[in-house]
Amino acid sequence: METPLDQLIKRLSRLPGLGPRSARRAALHLLKNKQTMMLPLAQEMADVAHSVKTCVTCGNLDLTDECHICHDPKRDLTRLCIIEDVADLWAMERAGVFSGSYHVLGGTLSALEGRGPAELGIDRLLSRIQNSEITEVILATSATVDGQTTAHYIAEKLSNSEVSITRLAHGLPVGGELNFLDEGTLAQAMRARSKL
Amino acid sequence: METPLDQLIKRLSRLPGLGPRSARRAALHLLKNKQTMMLPLAQEMADVAHSVKTCVTCGNLDLTDECHICHDPKRDLTRLCIIEDVADLWAMERAGVFSGSYHVLGGTLSALEGRGPAELGIDRLLSRIQNSEITEVILATSATVDGQTTAHYIAEKLSNSEVSITRLAHGLPVGGELNFLDEGTLAQAMRARSKL
Repeated sequence: METPLDQLIKRLSRLPGLGPRSARRAALHLLKNKQTMMLPLAQEMADVAHSVKTCVTCGNLDLTDECHICHDPKRDLTRLCIIEDVADLWAMERAGVFSGSYHVLGGTLSALEGRGPAELGIDRLLSRIQNSEITEVILATSATVDGQTTAHYIAEKLSNSEVSITRLAHGLPVGGELNFLDEGTLAQAMRARSKL
Repeated sequence: METPLDQLIKRLSRLPGLGPRSARRAALHLLKNKQTMMLPLAQEMADVAHSVKTCVTCGNLDLTDECHICHDPKRDLTRLCIIEDVADLWAMERAGVFSGSYHVLGGTLSALEGRGPAELGIDRLLSRIQNSEITEVILATSATVDGQTTAHYIAEKLSNSEVSITRLAHGLPVGGELNFLDEGTLAQAMRARSKL
């Protein structure tokens, strides 16, 4: 017979980063801290599930229909950064290197997983770019095959428009050691070398 | 300003095995699966927090005041296994090698953390052993300094009683490679070697 505790552990183990073993540990930690962890966490999860919305403009997750980035008058509306996922948007914001607006695709084109331009809402993205003051589109999809295919597809669709299209630089990660780097990155870093 | 989402991520990151990065990933996974993950998980957590109790006899966590192990007429009541934590009890049950009953100490003696015999309820344990049909006490505390100190303390307290006191064998873990093993374990394994 499966107890509620077993069910809880099972569901926790389906979270990314947790397996059966760490889910048990997490469940036990929650049980030992009912008042300070378990009940507040349950409450916060229910609250967030009910209050967080997807931004109608960029696809970010926030408490308002239009997210705080799209709503911020200080953001540069001439630059649009296209990313795959909300996690990528968060990463960009943590780095604090971009002051424009975003567009979350929600994934990449993938023949294998049956995601085409319609699923990613490419038409909606193109009309967003056309009906705006955007002058630069930064393609910041992952450096994977699917990510680059998606970037190329969008670049082609925009080739007739006036906007300038850029992509993130490829090369050595900061703090990365050469001998741990894959050949692809090394080749890119060599090709795009700059004068000191 | 800290949003409810930030709060949720912060609390998730306090779970054992999760850090800030994986907490964000988990939160995003929950948000993307509101109906199948986030809301059920919130509900299950609240349910379990309200329904799970600590067994009055052994200290196990279960849905009944006396846990299903203490309640099981098929368990051997002459053997008592003393462990530090509920997680250890779960591990023993998963291994399925013990059919007696348990006693969860809830930690070890620790001068550093200010846990003495009173905090672990050693008196309650001793009176439980005296007023029972227990003939063997298995000290299954961790092979750490604190764990072994606790085991020795309990063994000393029981030295005048009739029960036989045993401890788990120390040695090579199954599948363990000799060159990855610490010297202490290796020494124990050599000392306790057995004839083939």
